Amino acid sequence: MRIVVDAFGGDNAPLEILRGAADASREYGVDITLTGDEDKIKACMAENNIAFAGDLKIVHTTDVITMHDDPTSVVKAHKESSMGIAFKELCDGNADAFVSAGSTGAIVVGGTLLVKRMKGVKRPALGGLLPKPNGGHYLLLDMGANAECRPEMLCQFGIMASVYMKQVEGVENPQIGLLNIGTEDTKGDSLRQEAYQLLSNAPIQFYGNVESREMPKGVCDAIVTDGFTGNIALKLIEGTATTLFKLIKQVLYKRVFNKIAALIIKKDLYQLKNMMDASEVGGAPLLGVQKPVIKAHGSSDARAFKNAIRQAIAFAERDVIGTISKNLSEMVSGNEGT
Amino acid sequence: MRIVVDAFGGDNAPLEILRGAADASREYGVDITLTGDEDKIKACMAENNIAFAGDLKIVHTTDVITMHDDPTSVVKAHKESSMGIAFKELCDGNADAFVSAGSTGAIVVGGTLLVKRMKGVKRPALGGLLPKPNGGHYLLLDMGANAECRPEMLCQFGIMASVYMKQVEGVENPQIGLLNIGTEDTKGDSLRQEAYQLLSNAPIQFYGNVESREMPKGVCDAIVTDGFTGNIALKLIEGTATTLFKLIKQVLYKRVFNKIAALIIKKDLYQLKNMMDASEVGGAPLLGVQKPVIKAHGSSDARAFKNAIRQAIAFAERDVIGTISKNLSEMVSGNEGT
Repeated sequence: MRIVVDAFGGDNAPLEILRGAADASREYGVDITLTGDEDKIKACMAENNIAFAGDLKIVHTTDVITMHDDPTSVVKAHKESSMGIAFKELCDGNADAFVSAGSTGAIVVGGTLLVKRMKGVKRPALGGLLPKPNGGHYLLLDMGANAECRPEMLCQFGIMASVYMKQVEGVENPQIGLLNIGTEDTKGDSLRQEAYQLLSNAPIQFYGNVESREMPKGVCDAIVTDGFTGNIALKLIEGTATTLFKLIKQVLYKRVFNKIAALIIKKDLYQLKNMMDASEVGGAPLLGVQKPVIKAHGSSDARAFKNAIRQAIAFAERDVIGTISKNLSEMVSGNEGT
Repeated sequence: MRIVVDAFGGDNAPLEILRGAADASREYGVDITLTGDEDKIKACMAENNIAFAGDLKIVHTTDVITMHDDPTSVVKAHKESSMGIAFKELCDGNADAFVSAGSTGAIVVGGTLLVKRMKGVKRPALGGLLPKPNGGHYLLLDMGANAECRPEMLCQFGIMASVYMKQVEGVENPQIGLLNIGTEDTKGDSLRQEAYQLLSNAPIQFYGNVESREMPKGVCDAIVTDGFTGNIALKLIEGTATTLFKLIKQVLYKRVFNKIAALIIKKDLYQLKNMMDASEVGGAPLLGVQKPVIKAHGSSDARAFKNAIRQAIAFAERDVIGTISKNLSEMVSGNEGT
């Protein structure tokens, strides 16, 4: 198995990317292809004693896509960037899966236009893993690839999310919910009402509507929604948790006695904060394209990036794409039968 | 000034409603009209020593709208309910403002069809007050009255929110943001892109797009969005905070030493939890109808309900409706000029 890694994507590139990729090569026994400036990569490895196991390949390019570049530039002006070249390695069959911590928009564009949609998939979607309060994770899909969605897209998201949670995260019979503003099947706008009916007939364990209040409790293994709402929800959980931890910190420094309490519980609270931090959980799979693409968090450190590679390996190894394809066609033939 | 109070709306009716209304009558010097079963009201007052100041009027009716009733029943089968009669008192000019902790849907329907939209208003919207982390509040509008919105509606929400925050909450030059999935003016779906342009030309301090991650920090005095997204956001903040406080509680009971820390900071944490609790903040104004309507939180206790009456008084006293009307027509003539 070979993973192609965009060595110059993300806030902490290349150092943390190289560290994470090297750790993954040793721990998981995978071969790595790095894309980016070869001199800089080699210098960074030498300076920081970064050693890869297995076969390491470097594909040289000096161009990089930044957060300020138009996402579509990955197929145009910046197709020779570290991300563009990484996509090329994947498409040419030189790697089994792709991981980048670079621009989300560019990864979605590259995935859709270069790797290409799977047959029958209306739109690829980006899934975010979020922590359940007492262990495990749930997938939020779509978290931003498609700001505007049609009901059939939400239904396909449900099918793709179900396969991913089963094959990659090992959840037996994943429960799939539809994010909505009430629990009854008549709730929400017309998009939700129609999606509800389609999801009810899909080859998944459909939990029904889930109100956002219930989401953080981890009542489902995956929650599907349009990319606009998904992006709002993902960042709101993040923002609310960040604000709350800041306020708790203020409480802990309010009085001398509180500071003593802070000393006692600091470690446990820090652990809790890490658990709630989405970046700790791992990468976001782009579902619905023909090969495994994982977007690692932009602020990934070595550990988060290694974790994203772990997901990419499982994604490729466990035939997620083949199973999605099979379930989607079941859905189509099922619809034709009714 | 006279406030009409639906004595049988909400989880804690009638006891907490009567307590809150009586407290308001004493503290704010307002006359109260209660609607509902007169015998039960009088018995509850006598049993709990609830005494009103000013002139107390009771309009008798035995019917009640529950959470399970169709919201439109407030104008049909349940138009003689405590809420229906309260709307009638308001519409007939027997009261200056309306407060109920009953069914949100029924209040929106009653406000729209009985109190009626203001001239020029496309759709009334429900605004939720949320706490800023270091004091004060911001208004989220719409939080659920309109699941599907057009750009002009979001623009009107901005104008109405601005007037409300200035006149009722006393914020000079309220900053009004548009909830979106990025900060640039080209971000989001077509609804957001068009609304951005309209809001830029509205007679308000338009802050621009606000990402949901920034919302809990209190960067704006009001945030406008469609009712679907607003409802998701409101309940997600609530759900995330609730889950986090539960996890923190687990941390505090994890070890003997942690329990000691818990004793020290318990009071401060409890205070923080209350501050973050939306129900503590007060009622939700229904903006865009011809008279002041406030929806108190369904689980309101006496204090929250009294607070909702305080808002209703300010809403009526400070000519919120006249000012909204003036600003909306400025917008219309401004548009005609361009």
